[in-house]
Amino acid sequence: MMVHKTLLEAAQSCDKFPYAFKSTEEMPVPFEHNGALIGHILPSVLCVLKEYNHQNTPSPFVISSGRVTFASWADTFEKRTEVMRVLADHWRKQKTFPVLTGWRNELYPVYGHKEIAFVMERAATPLFGISTFGVHLNAYVVNDDGEIYMWIARRAKTKQTWPGLLDNCVAGGITYQYKIKDTIIKECDEEASIPYELASKARSTNAVTYYTSTPNGLQPETQYIFDLELPKDFVPTPRDGEVDCFYFWPLEKVKETILNGEWKINSAIVMIDFMLRHSFITPDEDPDYIQISYHLHRKLQFPTPIIKT
Amino acid sequence: MMVHKTLLEAAQSCDKFPYAFKSTEEMPVPFEHNGALIGHILPSVLCVLKEYNHQNTPSPFVISSGRVTFASWADTFEKRTEVMRVLADHWRKQKTFPVLTGWRNELYPVYGHKEIAFVMERAATPLFGISTFGVHLNAYVVNDDGEIYMWIARRAKTKQTWPGLLDNCVAGGITYQYKIKDTIIKECDEEASIPYELASKARSTNAVTYYTSTPNGLQPETQYIFDLELPKDFVPTPRDGEVDCFYFWPLEKVKETILNGEWKINSAIVMIDFMLRHSFITPDEDPDYIQISYHLHRKLQFPTPIIKT
Repeated sequence: MMVHKTLLEAAQSCDKFPYAFKSTEEMPVPFEHNGALIGHILPSVLCVLKEYNHQNTPSPFVISSGRVTFASWADTFEKRTEVMRVLADHWRKQKTFPVLTGWRNELYPVYGHKEIAFVMERAATPLFGISTFGVHLNAYVVNDDGEIYMWIARRAKTKQTWPGLLDNCVAGGITYQYKIKDTIIKECDEEASIPYELASKARSTNAVTYYTSTPNGLQPETQYIFDLELPKDFVPTPRDGEVDCFYFWPLEKVKETILNGEWKINSAIVMIDFMLRHSFITPDEDPDYIQISYHLHRKLQFPTPIIKT
Repeated sequence: MMVHKTLLEAAQSCDKFPYAFKSTEEMPVPFEHNGALIGHILPSVLCVLKEYNHQNTPSPFVISSGRVTFASWADTFEKRTEVMRVLADHWRKQKTFPVLTGWRNELYPVYGHKEIAFVMERAATPLFGISTFGVHLNAYVVNDDGEIYMWIARRAKTKQTWPGLLDNCVAGGITYQYKIKDTIIKECDEEASIPYELASKARSTNAVTYYTSTPNGLQPETQYIFDLELPKDFVPTPRDGEVDCFYFWPLEKVKETILNGEWKINSAIVMIDFMLRHSFITPDEDPDYIQISYHLHRKLQFPTPIIKT
């Protein structure tokens, strides 16, 4: 656990992909499709990818020093999806990357310019620095004094990622062909037993964007944020085994545990955004207010989702 | 008036300073102090500044092709403030730049690394691309159906800037040595006759940052945003002559007038932020949701305020 002196430090510990690199050797290589930047590949992954590419005929990728693209034969959504499926499956069986032990059987869309370039297994996205999209729910109660109490999840110790750490009440990735609001409603049921009648009252508030890196790889992420004020007598209950238990804490306790490093780091960033929006952190009191805001809203260079309205 | 097809277009019409320039000739020149970027100077202003610099002994600035800094003799806060005061005053008397006819007699702090480099007249800041800081208030009422109605200002036709356009209920710049919350309370009184007891309930929600350019110059700006839910029977009243009248509109009407180009453009951006935060614009419905978010939260390269807590 990493202790932070300030909330800015906590935000920086998540949004930590550099804005600039000192040497080109450290720089991840762009993964491009039809002129769009769709990912970043770390030198360590690129090395293994080159080897794989040589061993397969026809080679699925064109790898130059400056970038990686699909080979020209991989010219449809289906073919690119198949290339990525076979590759991820191969690395999973070979146990090449620890991150693939967290296999999800969840397909994520990868967006190009005005098209979905392909879909791929969620667990493999950090290897390619794919920009992914999720939802987070702030579930809270306002008591009679106007004070906010949050419902906070303790992640199960058996979770592949961030076991035992604190988390937002409900969160999840947006799987291929799911709508955003439908995803939050589904996750409300699965993770916290919040019924449809309540979950559908969740209100979108903004998007939080950051670019994190972990031992698993690169994760440029966008979280659509929802607030849900729950009735005072409602108690969320874990359902799918991903959550150990829920706590009911005032924001002061949330802040304290963030500074103590007890949170999954991207969920801490979502909580910091909530504390800003609800005036618990104010610009006269936190000298890092604007810098924190930048880390909550990093401009990612990747294409954004195609939303069918 | 510029009509916009989408809210993204409206946001882009404000946050329009380029992220990159095609040729170095178009690029504004950095204005630096002690290694900190404190502003940007357009080629047209630089030309006049060079002339002024030659005519004065000792020259107040060092102007190279790549940047502008103060001359080494201008080595204190007071001396730099005096250099900028004399310069702005000269240009004002000479009628060199139309923007200076809007003289405010308001001093803005200019931040360097961990210091206030100097203070200068507000009206002159766009000539140097100085990063400025203000407050905006969203004053609204929630009716019995849960629908939000906003109090919207019509700017006086006599205002120097953006006469006759629509605006947030209350807004203002943060003058040297004012606190942020104190500024919003002061402006509430001056612009809308909102008494202290109500104004002090305004809640900070976030910061909106953008980099706009107008015929007056370059304006990288940060607005601290406050929401204030007003009692149903309270009616704001213009006091200081800056506001013509107030309207009481549902968000649908606010959106329509933004798309019609009837708003002061940076106030439109603040309204778009409000509509996001209050779930009037949702990510399933607006395909530009994330791109809009980037324009509301642009990372500016300038130092941020020194807040004494």
